[in-house]
Amino acid sequence: MSAIAVKEVKERVIGDNDLVAKTVRNDLKEKGVFLVNLMASPGAGKTTTLVRTIEALKDKYKIGVMEADVDSTVDAETIEATGAKVIQLHTGGSCHMDADMTKRGLEAMGYEDLDVVFLENVGNLVCPAEFDVGAAKKVMILSVPEGDDKPLKYPLMFSVSDCLLINKTDAMEVFDFDMERLKQAVRGLNPGMPVYPISSLKGEGYDEWLAWLTGEIEAWRHGGTEIGG
Amino acid sequence: MSAIAVKEVKERVIGDNDLVAKTVRNDLKEKGVFLVNLMASPGAGKTTTLVRTIEALKDKYKIGVMEADVDSTVDAETIEATGAKVIQLHTGGSCHMDADMTKRGLEAMGYEDLDVVFLENVGNLVCPAEFDVGAAKKVMILSVPEGDDKPLKYPLMFSVSDCLLINKTDAMEVFDFDMERLKQAVRGLNPGMPVYPISSLKGEGYDEWLAWLTGEIEAWRHGGTEIGG
Repeated sequence: MSAIAVKEVKERVIGDNDLVAKTVRNDLKEKGVFLVNLMASPGAGKTTTLVRTIEALKDKYKIGVMEADVDSTVDAETIEATGAKVIQLHTGGSCHMDADMTKRGLEAMGYEDLDVVFLENVGNLVCPAEFDVGAAKKVMILSVPEGDDKPLKYPLMFSVSDCLLINKTDAMEVFDFDMERLKQAVRGLNPGMPVYPISSLKGEGYDEWLAWLTGEIEAWRHGGTEIGG
Repeated sequence: MSAIAVKEVKERVIGDNDLVAKTVRNDLKEKGVFLVNLMASPGAGKTTTLVRTIEALKDKYKIGVMEADVDSTVDAETIEATGAKVIQLHTGGSCHMDADMTKRGLEAMGYEDLDVVFLENVGNLVCPAEFDVGAAKKVMILSVPEGDDKPLKYPLMFSVSDCLLINKTDAMEVFDFDMERLKQAVRGLNPGMPVYPISSLKGEGYDEWLAWLTGEIEAWRHGGTEIGG
């Protein structure tokens, strides 16, 4: 039996999500903790990507992971094996995390001694895009089997993200996925956003993604980065 | 330029979704219209599956499709090419359809002369599971690349559905998907639910799915089927 901590973070009516998000972000900035809001569809490879990313960075940073899920602790158990600090958040049926839920999750996990925290948001391309949780950066994963037309159908998610990982590139040949068509649609919604094709299964394409992530972490912790969305 | 009808069906506060759903279902039963609530993750293959299913049934039934989406009309354009009656519903940011939105969609499309209506719900495994829209049957698609662990993570969707299609079986070898493990987890949540592996890309596995669907349509239109969820 695993001893993973589980915290219920059911949504509650709060006045102003953006205001709470700002408070969370300012507090994290002050403490030098870099929070990533990781968003994707179910099965896009969030957990596998996290495991590889943690393995690559764990000698350099103290890492925590908040696994948000409607139910179950399967992802938290996978993450725990990496040695990262982990907490399972159950959202009580809610299809997204908001800033207040994130704040309660951080407090339940304990975050002051960490350098980097990943919030694995609920698998969903709609609602999570609407809620600023107070993260330093929002990272989205789209997987090849989902198709290259997704920016047309879920424009908000592509618009609000700071970095886009295209996962499962090892399956490119099985699926009719046009990377150029995808990139063009993304540029129309979010011109400056970096797009990194990766295979988390095979560990391919990680150099660029890790370079971007490390650069952002360092800028957040030591630089005078403007506090953004 | 396509002339697809688009209807805004933003969610509004209504008293009792289950009551509206019951009204919708009774009205459809009376008129002999079989409504399918089709639910899946983004990119699981809802539209491709619909196209193949319509092609197989269109000589036998008059078919309508309501394409629910946060934005865009790409799916409706694909469906229109089959000759089925089609309307695009924009949910105004809502991540699911409810019974009242479905009622307004049916009225905007015109449904009295149809035999079968498919509602392609918003791509999401969480919220659509919570809302009875008034359909005769709920059909869920899970695609192989999403993984065989999804029943653990989205138990409600697997519990409320009446039929489960496992799509993209042509990609089984690329992904580490254990069909027996999946079926076992599904049986734990929903013992009687039929599970049909299909490939909508290649048109494989359709005989059983179409036999089930046709049987349910006939029972609804001519038999004394009990009106269920």
